Amino acid sequence: MVEAPTAESIRAAIREGRHTGLTETVGQEWAQGGPLFVPREYAYDVLLYSVRNPAALPLLDVLDPGAWTTELAPGADVRTDVPLYEVWADGQKIAEVTDLRPLWRGDLVTFVMGTSHILAMGLKEAGVAETTVDNPRPAIYRTALPTRAAGRLSGPLCVTVKFARPDEVAIIQRVSATLPAGHGAPVHAGDPAAIGVEGDAPVFGYPLDVPEGTVPVFWACSYSLLAALRAAKIPWFACHAPGRMLVTDLPWHAYRNG
Amino acid sequence: MVEAPTAESIRAAIREGRHTGLTETVGQEWAQGGPLFVPREYAYDVLLYSVRNPAALPLLDVLDPGAWTTELAPGADVRTDVPLYEVWADGQKIAEVTDLRPLWRGDLVTFVMGTSHILAMGLKEAGVAETTVDNPRPAIYRTALPTRAAGRLSGPLCVTVKFARPDEVAIIQRVSATLPAGHGAPVHAGDPAAIGVEGDAPVFGYPLDVPEGTVPVFWACSYSLLAALRAAKIPWFACHAPGRMLVTDLPWHAYRNG
Repeated sequence: MVEAPTAESIRAAIREGRHTGLTETVGQEWAQGGPLFVPREYAYDVLLYSVRNPAALPLLDVLDPGAWTTELAPGADVRTDVPLYEVWADGQKIAEVTDLRPLWRGDLVTFVMGTSHILAMGLKEAGVAETTVDNPRPAIYRTALPTRAAGRLSGPLCVTVKFARPDEVAIIQRVSATLPAGHGAPVHAGDPAAIGVEGDAPVFGYPLDVPEGTVPVFWACSYSLLAALRAAKIPWFACHAPGRMLVTDLPWHAYRNG
Repeated sequence: MVEAPTAESIRAAIREGRHTGLTETVGQEWAQGGPLFVPREYAYDVLLYSVRNPAALPLLDVLDPGAWTTELAPGADVRTDVPLYEVWADGQKIAEVTDLRPLWRGDLVTFVMGTSHILAMGLKEAGVAETTVDNPRPAIYRTALPTRAAGRLSGPLCVTVKFARPDEVAIIQRVSATLPAGHGAPVHAGDPAAIGVEGDAPVFGYPLDVPEGTVPVFWACSYSLLAALRAAKIPWFACHAPGRMLVTDLPWHAYRNG
């Protein structure tokens, strides 16, 4: 008999290099968080930017400078338990690593952001995720909407998209509004041009191709912060690679609000 | 014919010294926020302490260093539009002033916290506020529950209390959970000793005297932060005096979540 994996066993597999891919394919029932690592000097700007843009940047935890343990997963080490990390310097990606420990510094502050995995699980439970809302062409687009600036951080709001049957839009809006940790209610549903999305120029992933008979629904995305950090040419920061998240010990529905 | 006051006209009356008392007696329909002013050096600790203790410290706005205008009330000046401010140095109250401008510094960061006024309005609308829940003996008590520390800030959670008819407790819990900006769901309902409340030693206001046939209901209170700032002997900070808040331009129900 095969025992069901635990969050801890999934993190161990990641830590030991036995799972290197997307985390959404494992540990679906747990909330998955996206870690970001910035020097203390920039932590106030990141924290305030998150507070001012909560839909894009739902904070699950903020660690003390130098700390690598989180209440979200008491046995975890945020420096090793994510399948892949990106390291950025002066606006350029300089490395992809599976272990942040060799690069660790005592002044690094870890932010763990909520992710759209929580949203996807809520929509699945509501019965809409197995239809068109399961976007097989993940992508992130820049909008013409500004974020609220904080210190050195500013820039446009970036969004993700899912495609809904017209009769599903209302339930998608209602369900996602109860999941602030999963980016909450959509920013927009309908014509991409209304929020300035240029679908042929994604900042990540596929060009926008709205399936016939569906409505594109857009959510604020934490990529907004990464873009702002890059634009500000912060000397050094690290983050999880796309789709490679920290599997926490908390069930995703612990973040359901209402 | 007397015109109904606007939020702006109430703030003007406060600014010009024509209203000096509690703000809950005027401008009830607007969300009222509690400003706190700390030097930039302590702003990260305060911001993180708020994020880590959101029930006690619901952030409505955080201004840039030196700024005195807020999106919550575009015409307002947070230095003059509160009836009374307290100034604290090294853990001691050194002054009460009606105008912060003579003490203003370019490095001061203003935090505007949600207040129990928003909670009171929600409960009133739900039909329970006109009964025993309207506590005529306001007070703040220390609990045995810890807050989550942040940098130099730590200490016990402080709470306010209202008294509910037993059949009202469920609706009070349900309604207040939809009002995170008003401190959200109660921390506890029932025996004060269960959360370590020593009712004869309030940190503010009246000793606890639970009316016959009622259940005491406790909410996290922003006094927790003031106590932590005083305990840390922060060299200088200022805050609104109890019950003297900033009347914003937003209706209280703009903060209803669900």
